[in-house]
Amino acid sequence: MSSDISSFADRLGIGFKNLKLLQQAVTHRSYLNENRNYPLDHNERLEFLGDAVLELSVTDYLFRNFPNPEGELTNWRAALVNKDMLSKVARRLGVEDYLLMSRGESKDVGRARNYILANAMEAIIGAIYVDQGYKKADEFIKNNIIVELKEILSKKLYLDPKSYFQEKAQEIYGTTPSYRVLLESGPDHNKRFVVGLYLENEKISEGEGPSKQEAQREAARKGIEIKNW
Amino acid sequence: MSSDISSFADRLGIGFKNLKLLQQAVTHRSYLNENRNYPLDHNERLEFLGDAVLELSVTDYLFRNFPNPEGELTNWRAALVNKDMLSKVARRLGVEDYLLMSRGESKDVGRARNYILANAMEAIIGAIYVDQGYKKADEFIKNNIIVELKEILSKKLYLDPKSYFQEKAQEIYGTTPSYRVLLESGPDHNKRFVVGLYLENEKISEGEGPSKQEAQREAARKGIEIKNW
Repeated sequence: MSSDISSFADRLGIGFKNLKLLQQAVTHRSYLNENRNYPLDHNERLEFLGDAVLELSVTDYLFRNFPNPEGELTNWRAALVNKDMLSKVARRLGVEDYLLMSRGESKDVGRARNYILANAMEAIIGAIYVDQGYKKADEFIKNNIIVELKEILSKKLYLDPKSYFQEKAQEIYGTTPSYRVLLESGPDHNKRFVVGLYLENEKISEGEGPSKQEAQREAARKGIEIKNW
Repeated sequence: MSSDISSFADRLGIGFKNLKLLQQAVTHRSYLNENRNYPLDHNERLEFLGDAVLELSVTDYLFRNFPNPEGELTNWRAALVNKDMLSKVARRLGVEDYLLMSRGESKDVGRARNYILANAMEAIIGAIYVDQGYKKADEFIKNNIIVELKEILSKKLYLDPKSYFQEKAQEIYGTTPSYRVLLESGPDHNKRFVVGLYLENEKISEGEGPSKQEAQREAARKGIEIKNW
């Protein structure tokens, strides 16, 4: 076992009895293809387990601390446990420095990397649960993930960016934003859209993506930034 | 509080400290409309919580007892925690005798009832968790839900009925089943399909449903029964 992994455990603040569990948690399936004699399995079973631990920990916290209806709590939970949030937490914890993956995967630092990081984050939670029990995993989740709830609630990040931009536009300008496709290119299996976000006839921002929906969301995200909402 | 609810607690084998939690767990939202002075909330928050408890309990059990890849465990879990299974368990535990719902809902004993029962089952798990803690809830889930796993695995109930019928047909007759739409009626928003399931040109069963897919699944379910597979 590399000395790396024990420094990672230190960084997480978890005194793992079995460091192999933590190492497995940062082992992406692609790593095994290039390292046939690697003694551990990849992290997908730990991810399966960690996902359920995370779900209960967050659900329990929301249930006990907020009297809101189930529908609202469900939205808040989704904002806490989605891939974007988990990959953000993973980066903060330095998971990227310890990820084991194929050379091919190593080169892709965009969306695919976020997905791998988010899954590793769940697997790490699974590893803590197996090694240290539920209470310790729950504590880890509170300190590293539930800590994001305050910002989620104050910035209404549980709304998707389009809904949030619309709510703010109506509140401040009394107007409903609209989206226009500015560019559509590429073959069917690899489309690219550029969409503009407008208030009345003023263009606020542009977004780009593989579908109109994703381009609109991107435009809304940028619009929120530009407006400082 | 009715004496009923304490007999229900006895039936579940759980010594509730706070029986109101159990009563809330069997209170459907519709009941509050007709009983404005009812002192408790409906069961949706408990259901939100119980769903996450159930998920961890089942996930942990599968993780610890089976070395299978995550994809298989996910399918098995889905077969254990889906609405059909939960409503079946709820009926076996007599939940129906204690459900509080509107007169309107009381009349509907079909799919809508199953849905209400399954949700009440999750809410009951949530109530046990709040009142008695995780360990007791986990035990209850093992005794009443995970106990179904043996049959799920031996009868491959984690496959959808169409996949299962096809697998059996190929194994026994070396032939692939086919489906034919026998009847399509009703307006767009309220379609009704009747579909026949065939082996070669012999009709084995018929199924009915609001979409072709659902009618096919129903036909496959009946086909499995008829063939005694």
